[in-house]
Amino acid sequence: MFKDISLDELESVMKKAWDAFAVYRNISLQKRAAFMKAIAVELEACGDALLHTAMEETHLPEARLRGERTRTIFQLNSYADACARGEWMEISIDTAIAGKVPPKPDLRKTKTALGPVVVFGASNFPFAYSTAGGDTACALAAGCPVIVKAHPAHSRTSEMVAGAVLKAVKNSGMPDAVFAHLHGAAQSIGEALVKHPYTKAVGFTGSYGGGRQLFDWGNQRKDPIPVFAEMGSVNPVFLLQEKMKDDAADVAKMYAGSITLGVGQFCTNPGIIIGIKGDDLDKFMTALSEEIKKIPAAKMLHEGIAKSFAEKKESATSQTGVKTIIEIENNDPANNAAPVINFTSGSNFIANPKLHEEVFGPYSIIVACADMNEMTNVAKNLEGQLSATLMATEQDIIDNKELLEAVKNICGRFIINNVPTGVEVCLSMHHGGPFPATTDSRFTSVGADGIKRFARPIVYQNWPDNLLPDELKHSNPLNVWRTINDVPGKA
Amino acid sequence: MFKDISLDELESVMKKAWDAFAVYRNISLQKRAAFMKAIAVELEACGDALLHTAMEETHLPEARLRGERTRTIFQLNSYADACARGEWMEISIDTAIAGKVPPKPDLRKTKTALGPVVVFGASNFPFAYSTAGGDTACALAAGCPVIVKAHPAHSRTSEMVAGAVLKAVKNSGMPDAVFAHLHGAAQSIGEALVKHPYTKAVGFTGSYGGGRQLFDWGNQRKDPIPVFAEMGSVNPVFLLQEKMKDDAADVAKMYAGSITLGVGQFCTNPGIIIGIKGDDLDKFMTALSEEIKKIPAAKMLHEGIAKSFAEKKESATSQTGVKTIIEIENNDPANNAAPVINFTSGSNFIANPKLHEEVFGPYSIIVACADMNEMTNVAKNLEGQLSATLMATEQDIIDNKELLEAVKNICGRFIINNVPTGVEVCLSMHHGGPFPATTDSRFTSVGADGIKRFARPIVYQNWPDNLLPDELKHSNPLNVWRTINDVPGKA
Repeated sequence: MFKDISLDELESVMKKAWDAFAVYRNISLQKRAAFMKAIAVELEACGDALLHTAMEETHLPEARLRGERTRTIFQLNSYADACARGEWMEISIDTAIAGKVPPKPDLRKTKTALGPVVVFGASNFPFAYSTAGGDTACALAAGCPVIVKAHPAHSRTSEMVAGAVLKAVKNSGMPDAVFAHLHGAAQSIGEALVKHPYTKAVGFTGSYGGGRQLFDWGNQRKDPIPVFAEMGSVNPVFLLQEKMKDDAADVAKMYAGSITLGVGQFCTNPGIIIGIKGDDLDKFMTALSEEIKKIPAAKMLHEGIAKSFAEKKESATSQTGVKTIIEIENNDPANNAAPVINFTSGSNFIANPKLHEEVFGPYSIIVACADMNEMTNVAKNLEGQLSATLMATEQDIIDNKELLEAVKNICGRFIINNVPTGVEVCLSMHHGGPFPATTDSRFTSVGADGIKRFARPIVYQNWPDNLLPDELKHSNPLNVWRTINDVPGKA
Repeated sequence: MFKDISLDELESVMKKAWDAFAVYRNISLQKRAAFMKAIAVELEACGDALLHTAMEETHLPEARLRGERTRTIFQLNSYADACARGEWMEISIDTAIAGKVPPKPDLRKTKTALGPVVVFGASNFPFAYSTAGGDTACALAAGCPVIVKAHPAHSRTSEMVAGAVLKAVKNSGMPDAVFAHLHGAAQSIGEALVKHPYTKAVGFTGSYGGGRQLFDWGNQRKDPIPVFAEMGSVNPVFLLQEKMKDDAADVAKMYAGSITLGVGQFCTNPGIIIGIKGDDLDKFMTALSEEIKKIPAAKMLHEGIAKSFAEKKESATSQTGVKTIIEIENNDPANNAAPVINFTSGSNFIANPKLHEEVFGPYSIIVACADMNEMTNVAKNLEGQLSATLMATEQDIIDNKELLEAVKNICGRFIINNVPTGVEVCLSMHHGGPFPATTDSRFTSVGADGIKRFARPIVYQNWPDNLLPDELKHSNPLNVWRTINDVPGKA
């Protein structure tokens, strides 16, 4: 549909982004925020035409896409507010003490933008994690120009969104090259983008293979750069005994919806459900099967994802000791994915790491453990996760400290009696777990703290007040929170 | 002197550290802080015997070592206070909104320790960046067990400090393996430590070669880990014209001291001084030579460093267009390093990256630029730095915006009319610059914000209040700063 950018053109894009960086990073927080809000307005102004294009390209239903655009607009607006409030700069000031030996100088620390950020569009979030999505919003808030590589599965949607952003760039009087949009299906384009000397950080949401490749390229540079890749996860769910005694059927109903939401195409999809074998787990499985039966086959985002789902599901199903509890028949050739629930034992699961891998789609495996000890061992054998969930009574939690510790160790979001799908966009959200959930568990890609990925501290030592950046001036003209001599406040 | 640890022993050390982690990370902030303060007390209790051992091993004078121990004690105490205050956890809470569609769950974000941290002792800071130094203090504050690899150049000093730490471990009732100390001159030990599955982060202060190697090992793992390496820097100093018109001689005096402080063995040593050629710069060089003449040759930390200084100085001096302004004669065979000041032109400097490299020791090169434009180009051609300094009047700063931007772009600490040596230990300090100054410019190794290197956010979703970690409970029993529904405070 769209031609790949040439390496010469890419060179020119990066040079312009670098020049724009020198201007944009000095634009005030308020103006940056207004610019981000202008993008939100233009995104809304794209109207239903944008939704229809996205429907054609992604096969996602209109209601989902409408909701996702609303979320994207909320991200832009709320990160803009956070940008202007300035807490993300974590300002701290230590005032001079001339009488100290040696004299203590005046030190004022704020944050400054890293530089041009390359954002790779995500196939499963054509709005919220693509062209004007969370990574782009965070980078713009931090003061970084953004270069978006469109996801080839929704390149027309990406073009339309890029058009909206560029309108906002113009109307807000921002440097033209604060935002660039390009196409590059060839791997060489991705590599050139990550390795370009003017690229100072990368944002990515997608598969482990893709994320790891970008991360490795970023680290192989002469000057390594931070590559924040969110690479999905299996989001284990632990069913504890007292809870299951009363609520097996309700829990099953809740999870049938979560497993199949959006044809299972979420990085927070619950891919592994761990219980203790016995009547309650049987009851859960029966109820889950009944619920799953009601859910029809559907069409995945693109052929590549459907093919990968079929292969990974096949591979998981063919492992020793795995049986399929339910697989929905797919009678309509227009669809290419139907829900599947597999089953295995705790010991079998622990012994076979193949079963720990994500099967991206409407799939989950139920792991039946002999006892709590085995369940704890399952937790200890899992890799890093975006989220982990306990379905548990308070007594269950109190009685199972070792499991609790093992689970805490592997997840970025620790949930009790909720489903992991549905990631609230707010400051307290953390969407970043130990590797391989993300490449750096200390950062998040959801919530305004995601801005911190793209800025670095800088301390001004012994500067005259009038030449300091506004947020550091004695009179606090921007009225931001600052920690002065170890005391936080707005003084 | 001490035998390298065997790989079997190392395995056992790491296993014990991992087990200690499960206990230590749940120990309250107050108890962690008390433990850190107990280390400080034991360090003081080592008395002059510790200083004398360090003097023998490092050739640093007693006054310097006494001062460095005082600094190390201050680090332990002040990071302990910061640990207990808890601002480093960056707590935020978003309360539930049941009526929202879909309902917004209760979300409470705090930080949790990464896991066992390996700290490599630094040759040039036998106390402050070694066994119980800044990295160790930060990791302990974050809730991480620490495994220290002693620097072979001061292994007896390291043993004594480790003994003090282990006393505090015992007296504070901490798990024994919260701290381990080992020797390993062989590269294979370093590699095994960084690549061990139970190692979750690394702290290092030292050379570019060493830091880059650890960083690469950390990223080559199946599950990459953060390696924070502070790899030194040349800390450029820019002499602006109006300032130099009046103050050339005073500036020279200030810098003669800074260049030669501690035989130049600081990562903040000013290695490059950039001026505009003419009478004022000549006056500066004359005065600098006069001052340097007063400074005798001295003995460096160890033979390896002295050899490297001699080689790098030779290599820099032999480059085309470089001349030596002053080199102090070394007549005492007990010494192995004497101050050297070289000189070159701006165009020559820009053309030859060899001249941008750090010569670790009492060395600096003066770069005479044709004009401000050439000075700005020098700044644009430099790599990442811990610090950069302008010697400038206010008018100089106002008149040279482009230089200002270019300098801001390459440094973590931006100084006006001070020397870069002397790094104040306080919250506002930032000791971390763009690569290659450090491996991640978003973190610092000086100041309590250094704790953030070793902890990751975790969010608790929908938890009953009584089961939450104390810092997240509704009543705020620890009385810590928290941002609730986007508003910071202590409510």
